[in-house]
Amino acid sequence: MKTIGIVCELNPLHSGHKYLLDMARQKFSADYVVLVMSGDYTQRGVPSIVSKEVRTRMALMAGADAVFELPVQYATASAEYFASGAVSLLNSLGCVDHILFGTENGDIEEIQKIASILNDEPDEYKKELQKGLKRGLNFASARDAALKKLITIGNSTTLIGSNNILGIEYCRALMASGSKITPLTIKREGSDYNEEELADNFSSASSIRKVLESGMERTKKDTTQNTNNELNSSVKASLEQNIPADILDLLLSQNKYNRLDNYSDYLHYKLLSERDNGFISYADIHRDLSDKIIKNLPKFTTISDFAQLLKSKDLTYTRIQRSLLHILLGITQETMDMLKENNYPTYIRLLGFKKDSSALLAQIKESAAAPVISRMSDSFRLEDELQKSLLAQDVLASDIYHLLMPEAKNEYQKPVVIL
Amino acid sequence: MKTIGIVCELNPLHSGHKYLLDMARQKFSADYVVLVMSGDYTQRGVPSIVSKEVRTRMALMAGADAVFELPVQYATASAEYFASGAVSLLNSLGCVDHILFGTENGDIEEIQKIASILNDEPDEYKKELQKGLKRGLNFASARDAALKKLITIGNSTTLIGSNNILGIEYCRALMASGSKITPLTIKREGSDYNEEELADNFSSASSIRKVLESGMERTKKDTTQNTNNELNSSVKASLEQNIPADILDLLLSQNKYNRLDNYSDYLHYKLLSERDNGFISYADIHRDLSDKIIKNLPKFTTISDFAQLLKSKDLTYTRIQRSLLHILLGITQETMDMLKENNYPTYIRLLGFKKDSSALLAQIKESAAAPVISRMSDSFRLEDELQKSLLAQDVLASDIYHLLMPEAKNEYQKPVVIL
Repeated sequence: MKTIGIVCELNPLHSGHKYLLDMARQKFSADYVVLVMSGDYTQRGVPSIVSKEVRTRMALMAGADAVFELPVQYATASAEYFASGAVSLLNSLGCVDHILFGTENGDIEEIQKIASILNDEPDEYKKELQKGLKRGLNFASARDAALKKLITIGNSTTLIGSNNILGIEYCRALMASGSKITPLTIKREGSDYNEEELADNFSSASSIRKVLESGMERTKKDTTQNTNNELNSSVKASLEQNIPADILDLLLSQNKYNRLDNYSDYLHYKLLSERDNGFISYADIHRDLSDKIIKNLPKFTTISDFAQLLKSKDLTYTRIQRSLLHILLGITQETMDMLKENNYPTYIRLLGFKKDSSALLAQIKESAAAPVISRMSDSFRLEDELQKSLLAQDVLASDIYHLLMPEAKNEYQKPVVIL
Repeated sequence: MKTIGIVCELNPLHSGHKYLLDMARQKFSADYVVLVMSGDYTQRGVPSIVSKEVRTRMALMAGADAVFELPVQYATASAEYFASGAVSLLNSLGCVDHILFGTENGDIEEIQKIASILNDEPDEYKKELQKGLKRGLNFASARDAALKKLITIGNSTTLIGSNNILGIEYCRALMASGSKITPLTIKREGSDYNEEELADNFSSASSIRKVLESGMERTKKDTTQNTNNELNSSVKASLEQNIPADILDLLLSQNKYNRLDNYSDYLHYKLLSERDNGFISYADIHRDLSDKIIKNLPKFTTISDFAQLLKSKDLTYTRIQRSLLHILLGITQETMDMLKENNYPTYIRLLGFKKDSSALLAQIKESAAAPVISRMSDSFRLEDELQKSLLAQDVLASDIYHLLMPEAKNEYQKPVVIL
């Protein structure tokens, strides 16, 4: 029984994701495909446009057998923690043989070679890294230059490009955790991660979000029902190349697409309330950024404008967005350090599964090395304090998400999605 | 030079307040009348309907010579802290001879007698108090019964009625601080403190707020300009008996009346964020109330509905409202205890003055026993850590107030109101 794990965000699911799922079965002959999916927030520091329940349904419709939630601390963390948490969850399922991910080069040997250099830090690497830093390169460029001295395969201009970063981190986490899971990769097709123009078929999730958001804006401005329908069909027309038809219907049937700026007032209030103490206790926030937040607070209008105001050569927009989300959700650096020290503890939160995959679930219940939680009422099974506090923060993050999506049920009322 | 101090909220100013100001000059021959006024929040735990700047202007129009801000910790506290903070501020002005307040009985001797019994706690009082408590009376009733055994003057059914409470506390604070200020009282006319029906001339502030709020509600529902004007004149007609004409014009020219429920989302977010730690660190919140907040949190909709849900025989609606405001503003019990231990420290924040009262200000600058702050840029004068933290919390409270009244300037841009 070959089981392949895929880590994903599906914000929203598009044909690139569908392709990866199909490849797992066709190219790599998986009997089962399990997903580890971020919950209500994603790694770039934004709430997902539709809830994790809707995204779970999309995943099952696209062919996943079961979907598990990546706890919010990992889901919103920088690449190292994100990948380590996801691999820890896959390890804890106890029956996953492979992890599959997309990369720029599609070459798993190259990815693994880079990962092992970064993990082992051989002397030659360290020497080259120091040289680059002394030459005034920033850390990412110095690392890339040092790697290129040690590795000759491949011909990409940057070894650790945005599409390779997570793949490398998955491999590092597999090695560091002594995992029995082996990595697989396919070459990513289509748009770049951050591409905002829709390409044919393989668009990035962010360009799809743009289309949905601008459709929503136009709908708001014009309140006549007739124009609404027209706009809906124009949004549909521009997305039908990029999202499988049944999933697009589900996506368009949602009447609200969430976005970070919906939480501007809440964050503003929290920033004001804690201004006098500073923000360095939150994950990823160093003294400089904390001081900058305090200094610019009188100019706060929306989170996106504020992130724009704070960004600099050293701190990217996404990095700041993620930091601000950590403040909003109350995720501290102390928590992240503790998780790392404890080898990224997790619990197994089942978000959904396919009816005809119940054999897989039976297997997981047997092989799982962490408590399986299908309903929140199962949470009494958690005895470990770290697992308990992970879950409490997940519930809080979800409650904050639903402050603005009140139609959805709260964490304790949600059933597992079954297809 | 006879200077009389009055402690007030003016939310909004009405003929009862005007009467008190007039009496200070006519009956008690004051040369100057100085006000100690709550800032953006009041003692019953709500934001003021119009900003402190507008209320300062109203006070000056009604005849006050100068207006000073009662720091938010005192302004939103229970009677003992409220009165002690206000008396401390009056003491620190160094040139106030009298404090004037309204009471139910209008009899300063009776008020002072009660105050001294409560401060000195003679054996007979303690014995009677214990008796009442053993009989199953609540503290307020037992205290009242014990006082009645010791005092025969007066004929009110309750000695510590809602209108006497603050007067008694002012006298206790004067005694406890060894103040040279002597108390004066006049009998309160007109509506009761909580009366919600408009009475002729002397209406309570809460009934006036009701009229303004229901006027606002109707205006919201009907958006035609014509109806707006009609409604405005109907609100004006129902208030012109109760508020001096020029002040009513100023009040009605404000386009927004603030209310606690405007802050429901912020409080909801804070309650969710801190649920796992509980709320007992905040002022006035004991374990029982904290547990009740946590238990009822899934039912939160608005602050007023939530307070209604939490209230009980032991905890009044107002007490809960005040507790929830403490959470919203981050006012802790530790701060309140520290203020009490340090004899209610304060600074002198000047909100406004009459041009022709500049001799008074010159006098205060000379006699003041605490730093005088006219603009926030003067705040560098604060060296005392407690004064600094009082001011920081005042600035925060005001910033939170202005999250919903964004047209107003922030604390650092506000000029003193001069008439």
